[in-house]
Amino acid sequence: MPCDEKLCWLPFLQDVPGDAGGPAELAQKELAGNAALLGGKSAAVSLLPGAGDGYEILERDGNYLVRGGETGVLYGAYRLLTDCYRGESPLRPWTMPAFSLRMLNHWDNMDGSVERGYAGKSLFFAEDRFAYDPARIRRYGRLLASIGVNAVCINNVNVHAPADQLITERLLPKTAALADLLRPFGVRLLLAVDYALPVTQGLPTADPLDEKVQAFWNRQCDLIYQYIPDFLGFLVKADSEFRPGPFLYHRSHAEGANLLARALKPHGGKVIWRCFVYNCRQDWRDHATDRPMAAYRHYAPLDGQFEDNVILQVKNGPYDFQVREPASPLFYAMPNTVKALEVQLAQEYTGQQIDLYYMPPMWEEWLSQVPDLPDHICAVSNLGNDENWTGHFLAQANLYAYGRFAWLGRAFDGKAAAREWIALTLGSDFPETERLLSMLLRSRGVYEKYTSPLGLCWMVNISHHYGPSPEGYEFSLWGTYHRADYLAVGIDRTEKGTGYTRQYPKELAEQYESMDTCPEEMLLFFHRVRYDHMLRDGRTLLQRIYDDHFEGAEEAEGLLKDWVALQPVLPDGIYAHTLDRFRRQVQNAREWRDVINTYFHRFTGTPDAKGRTIYD
Amino acid sequence: MPCDEKLCWLPFLQDVPGDAGGPAELAQKELAGNAALLGGKSAAVSLLPGAGDGYEILERDGNYLVRGGETGVLYGAYRLLTDCYRGESPLRPWTMPAFSLRMLNHWDNMDGSVERGYAGKSLFFAEDRFAYDPARIRRYGRLLASIGVNAVCINNVNVHAPADQLITERLLPKTAALADLLRPFGVRLLLAVDYALPVTQGLPTADPLDEKVQAFWNRQCDLIYQYIPDFLGFLVKADSEFRPGPFLYHRSHAEGANLLARALKPHGGKVIWRCFVYNCRQDWRDHATDRPMAAYRHYAPLDGQFEDNVILQVKNGPYDFQVREPASPLFYAMPNTVKALEVQLAQEYTGQQIDLYYMPPMWEEWLSQVPDLPDHICAVSNLGNDENWTGHFLAQANLYAYGRFAWLGRAFDGKAAAREWIALTLGSDFPETERLLSMLLRSRGVYEKYTSPLGLCWMVNISHHYGPSPEGYEFSLWGTYHRADYLAVGIDRTEKGTGYTRQYPKELAEQYESMDTCPEEMLLFFHRVRYDHMLRDGRTLLQRIYDDHFEGAEEAEGLLKDWVALQPVLPDGIYAHTLDRFRRQVQNAREWRDVINTYFHRFTGTPDAKGRTIYD
Repeated sequence: MPCDEKLCWLPFLQDVPGDAGGPAELAQKELAGNAALLGGKSAAVSLLPGAGDGYEILERDGNYLVRGGETGVLYGAYRLLTDCYRGESPLRPWTMPAFSLRMLNHWDNMDGSVERGYAGKSLFFAEDRFAYDPARIRRYGRLLASIGVNAVCINNVNVHAPADQLITERLLPKTAALADLLRPFGVRLLLAVDYALPVTQGLPTADPLDEKVQAFWNRQCDLIYQYIPDFLGFLVKADSEFRPGPFLYHRSHAEGANLLARALKPHGGKVIWRCFVYNCRQDWRDHATDRPMAAYRHYAPLDGQFEDNVILQVKNGPYDFQVREPASPLFYAMPNTVKALEVQLAQEYTGQQIDLYYMPPMWEEWLSQVPDLPDHICAVSNLGNDENWTGHFLAQANLYAYGRFAWLGRAFDGKAAAREWIALTLGSDFPETERLLSMLLRSRGVYEKYTSPLGLCWMVNISHHYGPSPEGYEFSLWGTYHRADYLAVGIDRTEKGTGYTRQYPKELAEQYESMDTCPEEMLLFFHRVRYDHMLRDGRTLLQRIYDDHFEGAEEAEGLLKDWVALQPVLPDGIYAHTLDRFRRQVQNAREWRDVINTYFHRFTGTPDAKGRTIYD
Repeated sequence: MPCDEKLCWLPFLQDVPGDAGGPAELAQKELAGNAALLGGKSAAVSLLPGAGDGYEILERDGNYLVRGGETGVLYGAYRLLTDCYRGESPLRPWTMPAFSLRMLNHWDNMDGSVERGYAGKSLFFAEDRFAYDPARIRRYGRLLASIGVNAVCINNVNVHAPADQLITERLLPKTAALADLLRPFGVRLLLAVDYALPVTQGLPTADPLDEKVQAFWNRQCDLIYQYIPDFLGFLVKADSEFRPGPFLYHRSHAEGANLLARALKPHGGKVIWRCFVYNCRQDWRDHATDRPMAAYRHYAPLDGQFEDNVILQVKNGPYDFQVREPASPLFYAMPNTVKALEVQLAQEYTGQQIDLYYMPPMWEEWLSQVPDLPDHICAVSNLGNDENWTGHFLAQANLYAYGRFAWLGRAFDGKAAAREWIALTLGSDFPETERLLSMLLRSRGVYEKYTSPLGLCWMVNISHHYGPSPEGYEFSLWGTYHRADYLAVGIDRTEKGTGYTRQYPKELAEQYESMDTCPEEMLLFFHRVRYDHMLRDGRTLLQRIYDDHFEGAEEAEGLLKDWVALQPVLPDGIYAHTLDRFRRQVQNAREWRDVINTYFHRFTGTPDAKGRTIYD
């Protein structure tokens, strides 16, 4: 097999060149070094100054010509090589990415841990220092370039010392060294910053309207760009989950973000400002406050007040990367503000890279809901220093697909992306493509069935978020309640309830408002529903919950069986390592099935209509 | 006021002498140094060789004479001084303690943290080293001697490196130095040991029947006694909550304990073997396994098989220091085995030294259930390096009362102990003794009302164990379930259920077996009860739960009001520090009230009969 555990979806390429030069130079080297893939043809590169990420692949004199911008030719070169490897025609007309910034956010701490990381330790840090193998960083850079990712934030949005020093004199030389390593791959550096840094550095305040604070950030940015001339900018989690921010000084988030934006602007830098702001000290007795409404309430009134180099980063849904959420209402609002979609590859709530969970179906659903794409996109990384990069070997497919999604936007096809990933990773002649494809494509549905009924969120174990705990967050401060009782479950988010539906455009609001028109898979996100409520197919809500959980656990076993069937055609290491994950998934699915079914059975006393076992 | 925050119940004594000599010598020094308390009389000491802890206080020629054993005269000296201070006649006939070993177990880790500690950091350790102020250790030793505690284990029963080295050459010199500091106070050292130490030290096994392992422990004990000639022995948590033990080698706990006992015996040492052994990987679906039955099942069959220097340490109840448990069935069994009662002063499940919880009522209940006292007693310490020793100033009273309980056994009177503590701590003329006494005495009942209905355990937040989470442990691996549903709550532990009642002697078993005769406050410990079950006073179980929780929260406010009323007669520091605790207790009580009432209301839909607010 053309793949060992150290490799990801480009095992057929020669080792990545050590001294790469710029992206265009790297493109030429990659094409020359892997000419054997070109079927006897050669390939040249032609630079179109100012064309950026765009490229086309032409035939000239019986050979290939990759023509495009500085980064475009690199993307084109990888596309050419991978298409040839897969036996596809590599010619393609001019192509440009759907999202301008295609970012990856690592939630890595400098002690080497990764917040919500399920693939080992940090790729960049250990023991409060930079610590990496440059050769692996180059392989990482190539993987990103091959799927068009053009920016990474290497440190956790929850910034704790010493990571707050990444942009100060103390650590900037080291930070710059990593930026240098990534530059040939067209990958620019973002850093998550501590909004309270001026205070840490000796000022009495971090008030964005204070002139000394403004001067502080101006100086800081001047300094950064001396070390990293193409530094992309700051990622900021402010006034969120105990992080400091402008609210402390009674300033709006526009005032807060603009402070940093104005300091970065002379250098061409950007502020990526996360909209994950809500009251994380909610009283569960308070039925009026509804956490999914928070981001819209905070930000929608600020439309037009942000500097043009501020990008508001909005999570796909209004809660927090749950298995099933509607698109955030912010994607329908703020026409005069630059936005980025944020998705989470790290499987915090979606199986933690133990359970199989191919994400593109979620993204396709999101696309179907949102009329106008934001300018930029970001994904929380699922990478770590595990040999296979992503803990679960098949979780690599999510990163690959993310790159395709970020490039193609509305033209993205999750099935095609999975097919590409399989061919590139396991060989263009992999004999079990259809089986593996089917596993990936049905995995999200399986996970959804055994975990979260119809958009009901947060029935997870607290803190670590793996496995079921139906009331784990029910009386907590996090604003995450389902309020199940002996009759019904769910939050009424209609006009008669919290009024969340009003945050959507009229037509969509009306659709969500009524139980008759609300998409059934989101019924329990929008409505409080009685267990005896009849669904469209004639089943009661309760029976649907039972059925889903029995079926989900059974289908998880089906995934395991399929994996076992793949043994003959997989490398031993990958087979065995992943087999263990599937076995754990089956255990997890049974636990979810039994806990959730028992939970609702204890409320209702109603047995399963098909007589299957529900434990007391 | 005669007291500052640094002091505990002996603020009126002169500073503890630095170079104390032995206990008898210390007794003489304390009497001489505090002669002013003796009302113009003098006090002499007369040693009765071999009389140990016993003493009597006589009048001779118009002066006092303390006559007793080496430690007895020290206990007598403190009793004489404190009685005089309180204005009581200090004369008393010969007295001996009810329990021979009166131990304190610190769960201190060498990094300075204290497992389940609520009074700051360790008194002994920091940063993986011994770290203490000798003067404070002497004050600590005096406090212990004044209440007759004669043994301490300074390290956590969960032994992790480097604490496993406390008994090896590496740390023994330091360990011995602490033993030297405590020796004048009649306090002997115990150490918690890692059963797998032979393996850590290079042997291939820790099998108790292996001769090399036996030789290892023999050598180890020879070494220890070179450094600490009066070393008391080992405290062992084996095969419990992931700690290693003899089960790993398919040996019984008698074989396991006897290994260590035989190595200690030539030196006069003892093995304190904890009986906290149960399956902590239980499947919640398994209704047959019942955790409270575990210790009896493990140990009762081993009666008579233990060496005579093995002491089985048994928690007061069969679960784990819950607010209300019956006495462990082991206290009625194993007549040929030496046992120690273990209670927990650290308020893990009882308010964490934020909520007021005076423990003696629990001990008095335990006494009323158990016909024969074990030989020894032990308490998990509630001490730390907080200025006031116990986090909550009033939690000092639990340690004081523990010493009295350990001395007096059946003659113990929790109310009298509280009265003594108040006088000794706040002054013999403290004008609000009755108010403070009432607060202490009713505190356990208040806490029980707002937390745990009728012996129902484990409705606490997982891991940290403060505050309510009704299903926090419901689907866990810890064997702690109440299985509430829309009709009933509790585990049936009768003959028809798990059969737990059969572990008690016949008469008691019969009493617990029937809902009609089972003490009502333990009804939900022994029985599964319908919410509409009529209690003896005509209320339903559900209404009783509601009433208790409303009353408990109200009574917590009453405690706060009483504390506020004490402001004029308390030192400012103590008043303010403790006021903050009472305010937090009131918050906690409201949270418990609302969460528990809502939890059962969601199952039943039944409103409170008195129309009080239960939240949806």
